[in-house]
Amino acid sequence: MRISKFMTPEIIFGSGSINQAGDSLRRLGAEKVFVVSDPGVVQAGWVERIIGYLEACGLQYHLWTDVTPNPKDDEIDRGVKEYVNSECNAVLGIGGGSPIDAAKAVAMLSTNAGNIRHYEGVDQISCPLPPMVMVSTTAGSGSEVSQFSIVTDTKRRLKMTIISKSLIPDIAIIDPDTLVTKDARLTANTGMDALTHAIESYISLAATPLTERLSLYAIQLIATYLRPSTASRSNREAKEAMAMASLQAGIAFSNAVLGAVHAMSHQLGGLLDTPHGEANAILLPYVMEYNYIAAPEKYGHIADAFGEHVADLSPSEAAKRAVKAVKELARDLDIPESLAKLGLKEEHIRKLSQNAVQDACMITNPRDMNVEDVEKIFRQAL
Amino acid sequence: MRISKFMTPEIIFGSGSINQAGDSLRRLGAEKVFVVSDPGVVQAGWVERIIGYLEACGLQYHLWTDVTPNPKDDEIDRGVKEYVNSECNAVLGIGGGSPIDAAKAVAMLSTNAGNIRHYEGVDQISCPLPPMVMVSTTAGSGSEVSQFSIVTDTKRRLKMTIISKSLIPDIAIIDPDTLVTKDARLTANTGMDALTHAIESYISLAATPLTERLSLYAIQLIATYLRPSTASRSNREAKEAMAMASLQAGIAFSNAVLGAVHAMSHQLGGLLDTPHGEANAILLPYVMEYNYIAAPEKYGHIADAFGEHVADLSPSEAAKRAVKAVKELARDLDIPESLAKLGLKEEHIRKLSQNAVQDACMITNPRDMNVEDVEKIFRQAL
Ligand SMILES: [Fe+2]
Ligand SMILES: [Fe+2]
Repeated sequence: MRISKFMTPEIIFGSGSINQAGDSLRRLGAEKVFVVSDPGVVQAGWVERIIGYLEACGLQYHLWTDVTPNPKDDEIDRGVKEYVNSECNAVLGIGGGSPIDAAKAVAMLSTNAGNIRHYEGVDQISCPLPPMVMVSTTAGSGSEVSQFSIVTDTKRRLKMTIISKSLIPDIAIIDPDTLVTKDARLTANTGMDALTHAIESYISLAATPLTERLSLYAIQLIATYLRPSTASRSNREAKEAMAMASLQAGIAFSNAVLGAVHAMSHQLGGLLDTPHGEANAILLPYVMEYNYIAAPEKYGHIADAFGEHVADLSPSEAAKRAVKAVKELARDLDIPESLAKLGLKEEHIRKLSQNAVQDACMITNPRDMNVEDVEKIFRQAL
Repeated sequence: MRISKFMTPEIIFGSGSINQAGDSLRRLGAEKVFVVSDPGVVQAGWVERIIGYLEACGLQYHLWTDVTPNPKDDEIDRGVKEYVNSECNAVLGIGGGSPIDAAKAVAMLSTNAGNIRHYEGVDQISCPLPPMVMVSTTAGSGSEVSQFSIVTDTKRRLKMTIISKSLIPDIAIIDPDTLVTKDARLTANTGMDALTHAIESYISLAATPLTERLSLYAIQLIATYLRPSTASRSNREAKEAMAMASLQAGIAFSNAVLGAVHAMSHQLGGLLDTPHGEANAILLPYVMEYNYIAAPEKYGHIADAFGEHVADLSPSEAAKRAVKAVKELARDLDIPESLAKLGLKEEHIRKLSQNAVQDACMITNPRDMNVEDVEKIFRQAL
């Protein structure tokens, strides 16, 4: 038997829980808080609202709220300078995966010197980070609970996957109320990202009995609630269920890591700045078909979590229902059917595939993959 | 919707994982380690083995290994003196619930002054504790991951339940190999304690979607593996499953709290020094019968987790199968059938019941209970 490790931040979940942001930072010894967010979250009013909670706790703050989607190494460098110059001693990320990953990267480089590239891969961080609180405002990335930060290397035009326990925030706040300001496309994309986290972590080579149940439960919630959550901004029950699904999938993948879908979509994001969830949603069924022989029994459980009636099916028929269920969900959500629609061209595929096999997420993919295998899948999805 | 909180230590699980004790303490900045254990664990050789791992990491240590079952307030006071005099800066607990609860209590009083009684109840601890690593060597208490410490008040002859996030250890190490030195009675008692944690946390008023799945999975593992684990010291598969069950039930109850079984058994332990798991095992079916109307649907899920065929039963019939399954398990494990066998007498019942309704675990019991209700159950189980 292998030794498995499991770690999460302190989690605060529920409607209205963003009002605990100030108190959470105070408990961690914060005096001046570096607030990281993006223009969309600012516009929706969440940053202003949360700043009010910081002020109510007597905390000072400095705002850095122009993070872009798929955050870039050079903007992280600017963020680190602002963090140092503003003399903050704690970091608060507010938003989806991009601001939270950026907040973690700034926190990391504030105490770990040198180029961010040095920290790519697993366990490269040596110095402790400043206190970090993350407020998640999308139901998808899971970054508020994970040991991952994904940053685009603008020179190499790829995404660096940085994995370290040090990147797990101290406190994660998940407030389903923040989901009501998201449009249908963002809801669908982030939800499909959460589904990809759940499925990849479930079949990961590093899955454990502590992560598998979380993955399966997340799949079940997403199968039930992602359609209604995409359909209506004001369906509170669906928002809460999707927030819980994203959280559980996030805990699962933080501890069991991911697989080929993420290894491949990271490259698309690095080269073409594609929306992360959308790229995952397109790739997921193709990678699932490829991975099937590695875990047929688990595919049966995935189909079951989707509510497919698998009891009377053969194992291979049951397994195929899992892929079918994912395809149907993507179709219902109007996810584009091909990577070409995201800008992928045949001439990109060789380089993207070479980079994908080097991504840290590839290590735990349940079926071995070489560059040619990856190319084949990119072409199928093109 | 209510706001829910969820927190666990860093968890290291697996065969051979005790060899990470030294490294875990080093990572937390330990220089001299206060090692807390009991004579049984020392005799089984685990303390010596783990000390070797501390030495290999260049750590100094001081041994305090005469903790008694149901640890007492006066022995904690002696432990705190030894901790201070030996100039340790970190705490390592090795054993079942008693040494781990004692280790936490010593750590708490080393930085929080005054009588331990001041900290009884929920959230009474104000100063941070020294770094704590806990190595669990029984599959039952869950104390290695929980925010609980239970200490006997020798003057009032009751158990104090102390609940605080500060009591969650920094790192929990769960190594199923350590279970092979336990005899059948201890295996059965601690396993029934874990089952009680799983069931009480599942039906607790503070249960959340994050804890419920852990509780149910623990029930399922215990239903399958507690009999074979009690039958044989060398059934590794059963030991590993029971270690995982205890861990998941521990995470669940740490975050969802417990109920009337623990509120009552704490009093028995305080007055009569009864084995905790045995008292729980006797009380559990009676309390389940009482609590049934609070959560009939959940009882059906418990029965299902036990492998009972409930699909064609009415909800109330399904619910009753849960109680039946618990009774059958206790009978198969030769758990005594009455509290009289543990020394309980009619004249104790009034006082015990008055104390039980004051126990912090009673707050989350799903059905209201007054002193008379508790008395009735004590009499049924007598
Ligand atoms: Fe993702
Ligand atoms: Fe217990």
